Amino acid sequence: MASFIRQTYGQRIQNHQNPAAKMLLETMERKKTNLAVSVDVTNSKDFLSIIEAVGPFTHVDIIEDFEPSLIQEIQKLSRKHDFLIFEDRKFADIGNTVALQYSSGVHKIASWSHITNAHPVPGPSIISGLSSVGLPLGRGLLLLAEMSTKGALAAGSYTEEAVHMARAHRDFVIGFIAQRTMQGIGIEQGCLDTDDFIVLTPGVGLDAKGDSMGQQYRTPRQVIVESGCDVIIVGRGIYGKDYSQLGEIRAQAKRYREAGWEAYEDRQTA
Amino acid sequence: MASFIRQTYGQRIQNHQNPAAKMLLETMERKKTNLAVSVDVTNSKDFLSIIEAVGPFTHVDIIEDFEPSLIQEIQKLSRKHDFLIFEDRKFADIGNTVALQYSSGVHKIASWSHITNAHPVPGPSIISGLSSVGLPLGRGLLLLAEMSTKGALAAGSYTEEAVHMARAHRDFVIGFIAQRTMQGIGIEQGCLDTDDFIVLTPGVGLDAKGDSMGQQYRTPRQVIVESGCDVIIVGRGIYGKDYSQLGEIRAQAKRYREAGWEAYEDRQTA
Repeated sequence: MASFIRQTYGQRIQNHQNPAAKMLLETMERKKTNLAVSVDVTNSKDFLSIIEAVGPFTHVDIIEDFEPSLIQEIQKLSRKHDFLIFEDRKFADIGNTVALQYSSGVHKIASWSHITNAHPVPGPSIISGLSSVGLPLGRGLLLLAEMSTKGALAAGSYTEEAVHMARAHRDFVIGFIAQRTMQGIGIEQGCLDTDDFIVLTPGVGLDAKGDSMGQQYRTPRQVIVESGCDVIIVGRGIYGKDYSQLGEIRAQAKRYREAGWEAYEDRQTA
Repeated sequence: MASFIRQTYGQRIQNHQNPAAKMLLETMERKKTNLAVSVDVTNSKDFLSIIEAVGPFTHVDIIEDFEPSLIQEIQKLSRKHDFLIFEDRKFADIGNTVALQYSSGVHKIASWSHITNAHPVPGPSIISGLSSVGLPLGRGLLLLAEMSTKGALAAGSYTEEAVHMARAHRDFVIGFIAQRTMQGIGIEQGCLDTDDFIVLTPGVGLDAKGDSMGQQYRTPRQVIVESGCDVIIVGRGIYGKDYSQLGEIRAQAKRYREAGWEAYEDRQTA
């Protein structure tokens, strides 16, 4: 079996056709980082200063003072600091509605976000709807195959169905939000799994064990080495609650970046 | 077994503690309507003129020229035409994030939408997160227990888990988005189901059979009488593609309202 997990991010570029997937792997290889920073803050000043300090990954729909100019700022920072933008929108509606949500509204996500994600719960139509907007723009989609919260329903046959849906839409679906590699899932025993999906994993923490709202944390090593995921997603673990402490935020980002990359290097030789 | 399905909407008010649920049932009884109009258009002029012509139910996140003043307009119309606002946001993230999405951002949904909805896929934490924001404001939540699209994963044990989660949060969860009544689901055989959930059902059409993006349609009679749902959700079936034809839109809304109410009256005596 082609073990994508033992390949470097750079080697895996050739396994992908989707331009957002190629760009993501190229950037990870070039910058030696597999860290995505989840910037869940509600005003644009904090938002931009954290991005300036550390990097990508957003929830624009919680920004209170959102203005179209904010997007231009993010794009400028994306070029300056060489990162991809992943709007964690978690689309979850029927095809017709998600196509509108992705292209339109105040946020016009498709026009600036290299990667976005969707829940498979509505069935394959959610991928067709998003793909009709994103594919012509060179965008890529991650399906939420698993979630890190307590009591999540994305498990078992739900996860398998998500992987089936992804395999049927390889041009647009570049990977998963999941807690482990999806390699071999939904493949008949003895068959070769030739789909190299990129797995991004939330719920990663070096210190905390969880929050009061059901989030559960694992270390970069558990996620990358033991579970075969590719990118660690970290939010509050990096920027905490005081967004003015940019030195501390930078230091935490460095700490997570190093822990993530070390785990990845160990995986090559494990 | 207390058959909520044979009770009138008015009689069912006493089964509910949540103020949004009471308000919804009162309004349906008073106006003799079980129609929710899904206004999926991308500019605020069309949006307001369709609401002016027919009534509630929105996707504000697809409005291109959204301004906070739009909310004041909707609230004014809501009072003038005596309807409830249901923002069909389909929240689907972890507790901490949905709490921010519900309260913050450009749209500040909790401050004006009587009812919203969420996918149960992240587990019970999504309800705690939304409830921490919405309950103090007297808002109500619908869980998406089923979807009307082809290949939807919200079925079987997923649906059962959704109902379990709802039963454990009766103060805030007032009902479901589903294709049939959830009465008796997740209850041991022989036990009494005392939870009167309100079921709103999308995918209702008097003419069309489906769209090219996986949406499937059933008639008001199938939905209300045969499947025991309470509210029919209709979008494009009412306002079509030419939003300037307000006479036609009004006529279609009347047609659906009458078909929905007739089905409900037949159910009382069926």
